[in-house]
Amino acid sequence: MMRAFLLMMLIGCAPAPAPHSSTPAWVSDTKSSPAGAPPATAALAPAAAASAAAPATAAAAPLADRYREPVGKIVAAAHADRGAYQKLSHLTDRIGNRLSGSPGLERAIAWAAQAMKDDGHDVHTEKVMVPHWVRGSEAAELTLPIARPLRVLGLGGTVATPKAGITAPVVVVHDWAELDAKQAQVKGAIVLYDVAMPKWTEEKGSGYGETVQYRGAGASRAAKYGAVAVLVRSVTAHSLRTPHTGAMNYADGVAKIPALAVSVEDSTLIARLAADGPVTVHVRTEGQMLPDAESANVIGELRGSERPDEIVVIGGHIDSWDVGQGAHDDGAGVVIMMQALTTLRKLGLTPRRTIRVVLFTNEENGVRGGRAYAKDHEAELAKTVLAIESDSGGFAPAGFSVQARPEVQDRMKARVTDVASLLAPIHASRIILGHGGTDIGPMAPAGVPELGLDVDNRTYFDIHHTDADTLDNVDPAALADDVAAVAALAYVVADMPERIDAP
Amino acid sequence: MMRAFLLMMLIGCAPAPAPHSSTPAWVSDTKSSPAGAPPATAALAPAAAASAAAPATAAAAPLADRYREPVGKIVAAAHADRGAYQKLSHLTDRIGNRLSGSPGLERAIAWAAQAMKDDGHDVHTEKVMVPHWVRGSEAAELTLPIARPLRVLGLGGTVATPKAGITAPVVVVHDWAELDAKQAQVKGAIVLYDVAMPKWTEEKGSGYGETVQYRGAGASRAAKYGAVAVLVRSVTAHSLRTPHTGAMNYADGVAKIPALAVSVEDSTLIARLAADGPVTVHVRTEGQMLPDAESANVIGELRGSERPDEIVVIGGHIDSWDVGQGAHDDGAGVVIMMQALTTLRKLGLTPRRTIRVVLFTNEENGVRGGRAYAKDHEAELAKTVLAIESDSGGFAPAGFSVQARPEVQDRMKARVTDVASLLAPIHASRIILGHGGTDIGPMAPAGVPELGLDVDNRTYFDIHHTDADTLDNVDPAALADDVAAVAALAYVVADMPERIDAP
Repeated sequence: MMRAFLLMMLIGCAPAPAPHSSTPAWVSDTKSSPAGAPPATAALAPAAAASAAAPATAAAAPLADRYREPVGKIVAAAHADRGAYQKLSHLTDRIGNRLSGSPGLERAIAWAAQAMKDDGHDVHTEKVMVPHWVRGSEAAELTLPIARPLRVLGLGGTVATPKAGITAPVVVVHDWAELDAKQAQVKGAIVLYDVAMPKWTEEKGSGYGETVQYRGAGASRAAKYGAVAVLVRSVTAHSLRTPHTGAMNYADGVAKIPALAVSVEDSTLIARLAADGPVTVHVRTEGQMLPDAESANVIGELRGSERPDEIVVIGGHIDSWDVGQGAHDDGAGVVIMMQALTTLRKLGLTPRRTIRVVLFTNEENGVRGGRAYAKDHEAELAKTVLAIESDSGGFAPAGFSVQARPEVQDRMKARVTDVASLLAPIHASRIILGHGGTDIGPMAPAGVPELGLDVDNRTYFDIHHTDADTLDNVDPAALADDVAAVAALAYVVADMPERIDAP
Repeated sequence: MMRAFLLMMLIGCAPAPAPHSSTPAWVSDTKSSPAGAPPATAALAPAAAASAAAPATAAAAPLADRYREPVGKIVAAAHADRGAYQKLSHLTDRIGNRLSGSPGLERAIAWAAQAMKDDGHDVHTEKVMVPHWVRGSEAAELTLPIARPLRVLGLGGTVATPKAGITAPVVVVHDWAELDAKQAQVKGAIVLYDVAMPKWTEEKGSGYGETVQYRGAGASRAAKYGAVAVLVRSVTAHSLRTPHTGAMNYADGVAKIPALAVSVEDSTLIARLAADGPVTVHVRTEGQMLPDAESANVIGELRGSERPDEIVVIGGHIDSWDVGQGAHDDGAGVVIMMQALTTLRKLGLTPRRTIRVVLFTNEENGVRGGRAYAKDHEAELAKTVLAIESDSGGFAPAGFSVQARPEVQDRMKARVTDVASLLAPIHASRIILGHGGTDIGPMAPAGVPELGLDVDNRTYFDIHHTDADTLDNVDPAALADDVAAVAALAYVVADMPERIDAP
């Protein structure tokens, strides 16, 4: 568990699907949707939502039978609502990106708390100290065999070069084995990890999980052999000269060397030139880690009517990288959760248990918010019946990934599948075993079962951690359906007589 | 004709398809390819190429019947060859972009002349004086209601702002009518043309032609109403915060004001903010026009065996914008033509007439090379039986567009269709009436018939005139098939007994 958790920290917000569930959710979902189900963008009347939700071939579905009516109302209301998009507009266009330690993050936290108060929820913030890394200016260029500017973006956490930068020969590698084989050349050199992320396919989904390891661990593995800096090909399968930042991690006991992402176009250029002769690059960055800064998780609740001490947590992360607007990552997750709670409150649907929105701080470079929440709420975890996270972008929903203890996961999956059959009208019925969420992950050792909202993320890694993660890429209708999926599932789990993981 | 010619100059290298031929060539081509034709990437034996080229349903095809054997040889040889890609590698990776007046362009010209000599052709250069515009540094940012950097790229030819830049309120318009309607607000303002380019569709192809007019004429039309600068939404349907440059044109008698392209993401951000209240932007550019610089067209020939004074011109343009590598635009066209001639020479296929490669200078911001060629070779134009241009990128070939005098075009189209039936194995058989080429256009008034190489350009405008027009986006196999298509067609037209446009 700990190892998986550390890996999640390292790679940021979108780990690979679990091996046993590598088929992306929406593929099967789309294919298995009942013919005649309305498209996600069509107006849904409550009756339509309810009637489309019971395919004739379904197995016994006691939860769906019991909750058909309220879920129909939730889905219809959320589907027609644009409140999440309005919130996201403010968060992205008016506040912007929000790296831990930045004024933008603290403005976002204050805004989110106020917006949830305005929507009538019980709101408070909980202090969390977060890493405070700042980028400063940075640049890189080829100097041999040609002079050519390179598009780079320092990896989050990178140390600075000397003021004048570093000029050194480049050693290009395509995997760890090639790094090991070339170790004699690496001393004093800049290592370029020119590792291509595979394109998205129906069978395998994105190739992010298998490629991001070079971003996370590349600096220290090259430093062990005496490298003076690393360049890492941006972790994306589609580029328009677009560098992608993201977390990296320095291993203990190894020299910390500067680490920058380079665009796919520039990475392949260097690799082509290096195949023909010596290549030299100049890199300069001012990245530095300042003392920890004060930040906060934001918590807003709809108190349960009968068992308020039993809790369903629904969350996303309010921090982002310091580029673009953090619209899909994870502004979308934040506003989906805020609006899910508001949808229920507006409908007057108060479940037996409490639903608690947690907007976690510092997912991207520390997971301090998620860890602080699990620690500070340790006494509540036994009564935390479920945690749901959205951190794969605000694309059209596909269903949910279940992550729970082995002895629980099959019945969890069956019950969530039962409930989610009601989400067929918005194509969110596909339930798989997979990743829950990075921020809710620290609750897992205490046995809290998790769900991750799965979406059609085929274009997510085009804009992930870039300047192009902006509001114009978010479809308001898709975002509304994400709200519908989360609100419906959270409501049923918070209201059903038994715990969702009960034997 | 003149009006069309000026429009071509204005919009650069990829005018809209003619209205009567708006279906992109490869759509019908793909659909109408004989079943069982080998895929473009399969190895082609001459026999296979020849046998696949005679669909049972074809009308009389005297040219195909006559030239089946040499065309089969040409297609097979070119399809298997990677010489064009090797040339493009040098032009892009070693020389790079090459705006008129830059050292890069003159290095490219010297290299191309030498490369054609090395391939055994008769080569010379012809001096052309070209505009010499330089970009300098440039930047823009939102200053109200939020501070936010904007991704901009000055339009080619823009004048400079004052050194400190210009800060002014922004007036957003979406078409000319809205500009006219808002003229009272435009005085003293920066006009943003937030005009979305429609996405590529099978029915209409790209929406470039209908959108690029705002880039070309936007500055002067806004200046007439007293605007102090313009921002133009980048002419693309797919962006990763990518600004696209391109030609613009100052009208006589109107103040010249700075004109910059802005990324789609930033254009839509400004438009959203402006819908809610005042928006102010600061722009700064150093764009300036220097005295004309000396450049050259590069000419390489395979002299005809019987009628060397009759000529088939095949060309592309050797200049590019000052961003990216000019790989598709129009490095591809340059190397396609160079390698087409080399393919014929290597095969020992000397046609009756002369085939002349012309690598035109200064297409992007002046068409001086094309105009100089037509003027300097005026005496030869009556005996120039055809001109072929490739300037839509080095994607997989689809066929050719025929542009000729009305009284000639139908028989031209029929004969080219006859010849191109032999190109079915590489899916390049679709012949439409459409645009020939910007550089060969100045020969049209003298009656020279034109062909444009059509390609599958659905992703062309994603990278067009950007930093992402780089070699890694070029598929060597597709480029080889472009060579095959041009070499085959040029050979037949240069060798056939009658002129291709003969009554």
